[in-house]
Amino acid sequence: MPLHRIYHTPGQFSTEDKKGLANAITELYTTNPHGPHLPPFYVVVLFVPVEEENFFVGGKNTKNFVRISIQHIARSFETHDIAKGYIQLYENALAPFIKEKGFDWEIDIEQIDRNLWRTNGLIPPLSNSDAEKEWVRFNKAVPY
Amino acid sequence: MPLHRIYHTPGQFSTEDKKGLANAITELYTTNPHGPHLPPFYVVVLFVPVEEENFFVGGKNTKNFVRISIQHIARSFETHDIAKGYIQLYENALAPFIKEKGFDWEIDIEQIDRNLWRTNGLIPPLSNSDAEKEWVRFNKAVPY
Amino acid sequence: MPLHRIYHTPGQFSTEDKKGLANAITELYTTNPHGPHLPPFYVVVLFVPVEEENFFVGGKNTKNFVRISIQHIARSFETHDIAKGYIQLYENALAPFIKEKGFDWEIDIEQIDRNLWRTNGLIPPLSNSDAEKEWVRFNKAVPY
Repeated sequence: MPLHRIYHTPGQFSTEDKKGLANAITELYTTNPHGPHLPPFYVVVLFVPVEEENFFVGGKNTKNFVRISIQHIARSFETHDIAKGYIQLYENALAPFIKEKGFDWEIDIEQIDRNLWRTNGLIPPLSNSDAEKEWVRFNKAVPY
Repeated sequence: MPLHRIYHTPGQFSTEDKKGLANAITELYTTNPHGPHLPPFYVVVLFVPVEEENFFVGGKNTKNFVRISIQHIARSFETHDIAKGYIQLYENALAPFIKEKGFDWEIDIEQIDRNLWRTNGLIPPLSNSDAEKEWVRFNKAVPY
Repeated sequence: MPLHRIYHTPGQFSTEDKKGLANAITELYTTNPHGPHLPPFYVVVLFVPVEEENFFVGGKNTKNFVRISIQHIARSFETHDIAKGYIQLYENALAPFIKEKGFDWEIDIEQIDRNLWRTNGLIPPLSNSDAEKEWVRFNKAVPY
């Protein structure tokens, strides 16, 4: 958690762009003062290249679109207002790599029951617990 | 919204098949009189080729199966009966490209909270609102 | 149902590993006495290779991580305790192919409404119904 699958066409992102975008997303969940301060290794970002002939928007092939499918597990939004604020931060993180390059894009967040989640076979510690803080400190799933 | 990820093996669909299937799906959400008349650009269809040695059904490699994973966001089904009718239309759209080719297939629809969705950074307009009709007319996410 | 998408880097799994892991997962849903005894063809396992430069964990490229995204449709867990027991079986099935190879990994299960699911265009039979047992026996979606 969180899992970000970024569907794009080959060539939309350079190696440096990918590093930059993955970092901007990761910081939002870890070091950002308004974020949830998760252990960094919780944040998984996958770039999935889809050939233009396999990528359809409105029935037409495109090489200009980025579709990001996000799963949240470790935290659920408590209110729609909180969600709105967080999504705005997320959009700001994306902007230099997507909006400012002239691409179109779409994102959605799906929320998964944290009881149906394991990392390295362990039940992840409760939100904001001391054990979770240990996982942040070690950046690793350690028995607790 | 909707997002259709079509997992298949290489060679199951020609370029023409892909265009045809993406169009049949797109029309269902846009021009079909029984559909939701969404802006066309809402409909994202991704063909994801998976090599036969990576594609297992019942523990066996196959090159004959199509697995479609669908997300609905802009609309949720109000009743199971409405869902049933709509899925039948969807199956009819798939048939010439899948059933009639002798493939096996499976589909599922997952429904996502529209509050956790953005397109080009904007909160999409409410279902059937005047603003949504503008997005249909322009086929574009315009400020409203 | 179930759908298992296994995101990994190229080279983490040999062809034999992939067969072994797909079989271990499939048995859990079919022949395992503690499992749900589903028709084998319900179990779809897709290995999705993601290049190291596209696979980020904690903002860093990795070739050592396996991310498994699971969908359950035919059955929902009735209690968290039942889920816990089942996930432990699942982790045991993964272990020889992932933990014992020294990889890190993460799994999550998302539960989908079975009313929004079709296989070969048919509404799958109810859990544990006679019709479902026929589907097990034939390992095929047959009209009922």
